Amino acid sequence: MSKQFDVLVIGGGPGGYVAAIRAAQLGFSVACCEDKAYADPKGEPRLGGACLNVGCIPTKALLHTSHLFEEAAHSFAEQGIRVGTPEIDVARMLERKNTIVGQLTGGIRGLFKKNKVSFLPGRGAFIGRNGANWQMKVGDESVEATQVIIATGSRARHLPGVPVDNRIVCDNVGALDIDAVPKKLAIIGAGVIGLEMGCVWSRLGAEVTLLEAAPQFLASADADVAREAAKSFAKQRLNIRLGVRIDSVKAAADAVAIEYTDAEGKEHKLDADRLIVSVGRVPNTDGLNAEVVGLALDASGRISVDDRCRTNLPNVWAVGDVVRGPMLAHKAMEEGVMVAELMAGQAGHCNFDTIPWVIYTSPEIAWVGKTEQQLKADGVAYKVGKIPFMANGRALGMGETTGFVKMLACAKTDRVLGLHIVGANASELIMEGVTALEFGASSEDIARICHGHPTLSEAVHEAALACDKRALHF
Amino acid sequence: MSKQFDVLVIGGGPGGYVAAIRAAQLGFSVACCEDKAYADPKGEPRLGGACLNVGCIPTKALLHTSHLFEEAAHSFAEQGIRVGTPEIDVARMLERKNTIVGQLTGGIRGLFKKNKVSFLPGRGAFIGRNGANWQMKVGDESVEATQVIIATGSRARHLPGVPVDNRIVCDNVGALDIDAVPKKLAIIGAGVIGLEMGCVWSRLGAEVTLLEAAPQFLASADADVAREAAKSFAKQRLNIRLGVRIDSVKAAADAVAIEYTDAEGKEHKLDADRLIVSVGRVPNTDGLNAEVVGLALDASGRISVDDRCRTNLPNVWAVGDVVRGPMLAHKAMEEGVMVAELMAGQAGHCNFDTIPWVIYTSPEIAWVGKTEQQLKADGVAYKVGKIPFMANGRALGMGETTGFVKMLACAKTDRVLGLHIVGANASELIMEGVTALEFGASSEDIARICHGHPTLSEAVHEAALACDKRALHF
Repeated sequence: MSKQFDVLVIGGGPGGYVAAIRAAQLGFSVACCEDKAYADPKGEPRLGGACLNVGCIPTKALLHTSHLFEEAAHSFAEQGIRVGTPEIDVARMLERKNTIVGQLTGGIRGLFKKNKVSFLPGRGAFIGRNGANWQMKVGDESVEATQVIIATGSRARHLPGVPVDNRIVCDNVGALDIDAVPKKLAIIGAGVIGLEMGCVWSRLGAEVTLLEAAPQFLASADADVAREAAKSFAKQRLNIRLGVRIDSVKAAADAVAIEYTDAEGKEHKLDADRLIVSVGRVPNTDGLNAEVVGLALDASGRISVDDRCRTNLPNVWAVGDVVRGPMLAHKAMEEGVMVAELMAGQAGHCNFDTIPWVIYTSPEIAWVGKTEQQLKADGVAYKVGKIPFMANGRALGMGETTGFVKMLACAKTDRVLGLHIVGANASELIMEGVTALEFGASSEDIARICHGHPTLSEAVHEAALACDKRALHF
Repeated sequence: MSKQFDVLVIGGGPGGYVAAIRAAQLGFSVACCEDKAYADPKGEPRLGGACLNVGCIPTKALLHTSHLFEEAAHSFAEQGIRVGTPEIDVARMLERKNTIVGQLTGGIRGLFKKNKVSFLPGRGAFIGRNGANWQMKVGDESVEATQVIIATGSRARHLPGVPVDNRIVCDNVGALDIDAVPKKLAIIGAGVIGLEMGCVWSRLGAEVTLLEAAPQFLASADADVAREAAKSFAKQRLNIRLGVRIDSVKAAADAVAIEYTDAEGKEHKLDADRLIVSVGRVPNTDGLNAEVVGLALDASGRISVDDRCRTNLPNVWAVGDVVRGPMLAHKAMEEGVMVAELMAGQAGHCNFDTIPWVIYTSPEIAWVGKTEQQLKADGVAYKVGKIPFMANGRALGMGETTGFVKMLACAKTDRVLGLHIVGANASELIMEGVTALEFGASSEDIARICHGHPTLSEAVHEAALACDKRALHF
């Protein structure tokens, strides 16, 4: 006899566990299954998906430690804090990171208990229909559910012919467990993951080279932001080469040799102690038995969904990295909540136009809404208000004067169309912009809101004022 | 012959310099005068008022350095960063602080030039009327202006019989220039300034005792917030005694002896190396010649103004610490902008209900809108959403899990009535609450806004969800 649920969620990452919790809150009987992709030291599957296990959370722990290390090495003396030359105990740093991951992934187990979500260990797959229900398999167990939410996430894309051993050649998983600071670190792919990991290891002393195929740096960001970030990364000794073609990667027992051709067609050889491959991510659809039940995928191999996350199959939904849209944990969570509420007959809601982008490098990069180049392409007349953190008292106090806040507003209506921040704490400051966009705020609205002093947020205020050419502090 | 201006602003602090710049932007001929209260090393008056010279800005510089010092002493080992026992070079720390102050106060001179505001060194005072103009004196010079904005700010209140030498017995001015870490530091007054300075010196190794007359800690904050902050300060070895009566203060060449009676009526003696007196601030009305022209003061000695900052005299306005309301730089700036715009026949705008309060201790404290005790007193039915930072992934990554976010929303309309944050970065996170209040947001609005992951802002999101008992991560 199969286990029976109203809802089966396949995958316990941000999209899945949030959908499961919200569905349970709305009165459904809910199970969430997760296989051993991220097992704990005892081999038990861990909830939280890539984000909590090998993504956002562990990365932020390493970024925090490496940021403090950098401060100790480079800003302490100027501030009058005397310490010897700092040394990093990588094992200890990783241990702390692992503790945090353990805490948070364990916390989701607790949340499942609290919200009465059944956790089923094992991989979920479709078997077929049984009346109004979906017949499913979780590991070796039969499960029936009226509704199915697929939240199987994504995994690192690898390069053909470059096997990842997560020791010498790493993807995002191994990159978080490098056990000593490499003297030379090569990174293929200067996207979010490559940049974040490059920052971590560069701050700790590695000589980092990033090889990027695209001719343009951070092409999805506002061009101004990308330029400022590139300038700052260069200062931090991150060597970023654009428009590069990888010709060969040869891993040895304790080193790796990379041959590549640069944008000018010149051939180079790069020797490194470690290589991180961060060239994008692939949706996890293997093993779902999608073909058996006729679940439609799109051209890029993701599960086809509409803007309410409905697949082509009745009562089958899909959310997160496995569907179209940016591979961001918070986007997955929004979709998870929306699907749960739609299943319950509520309105559901996911505003894809106000999802913030965040990159946790130093300086941080965050934006919401349109970039300047998008507005140009769309033929929208706009105003720009741009304020450097150099003109911000809090930034001076923190010694974090890199970057700026840039607001874009409609020239006709004054409505805020985009907010772009590169600088300390951009990840938090962006929320004012997200809120503004959600409320259809004008730049004047933001200009007329009192901002605490001294805060970095004042730069957002000044950027709003600058849209109307009346900045007070610049 | 007098110098003639449309507008004379008396005082170059945040209220004054901002009013001057905004008035000039609106087409007025504007002068701003400032005396030598905050002179530079050459004896020249410095713009920026208490905030930039001896308040917000230098305090934040010291808080930043002392925060890093504390991290080095207490969190580095756990993170795997090996440094010797950190030592503080106080002279260097103060030098950096002074550099920042010099940069920012000099920056305002630059802003005056850019916006064509005339700077007049010297104290401003009323002489009388000359037709439609006000006859004024700035230092020895005669000035006529159609409109006058008084922005003379405030200075530290001293205790009767306790002379401040700013060496052994300091107010906020001397507290920023203590030239060595005191072994024992006494602070009279556990308000914002006392707490911030207590945090700085305690982190650097001083044994700090705060003596507060009020029976309740941080009475203006939400009681929950005050309780959480008190708990955290106690853990940081800040010794805070409430309901205390100071009986005597005897300063010697290199020490100070304080006798006080505690809340139970027991007498104590406290010996310290330094004493900071931070028992509130007094409006600066001396020397204005207020009585000559009949400028009305209120019962507390501040200049009487209505909610548009109009005094009882025609075309005379007053803003900032010298008038009613919280003594906050950003409140002064809001008023300054409002007055300039009202003078220009514009609508003007200052929403006193959405001015954020910020205390830059560690953890930071910030709030906007009503406290729970205010809502109770007003008989408003409300909902509470409260989320500890312990449940926040970014906070864990940063090792900053103290505190919480607490949202208060109307039980009937769901409108957000208050947001209270105690924790890392509260000063920046509060802006989402300010924006929400300005837009009349409901807690559901905030719950339906996508928050970047992992951020501390997610705790605001969860608090909004919790108002409706549907937190996802707690």
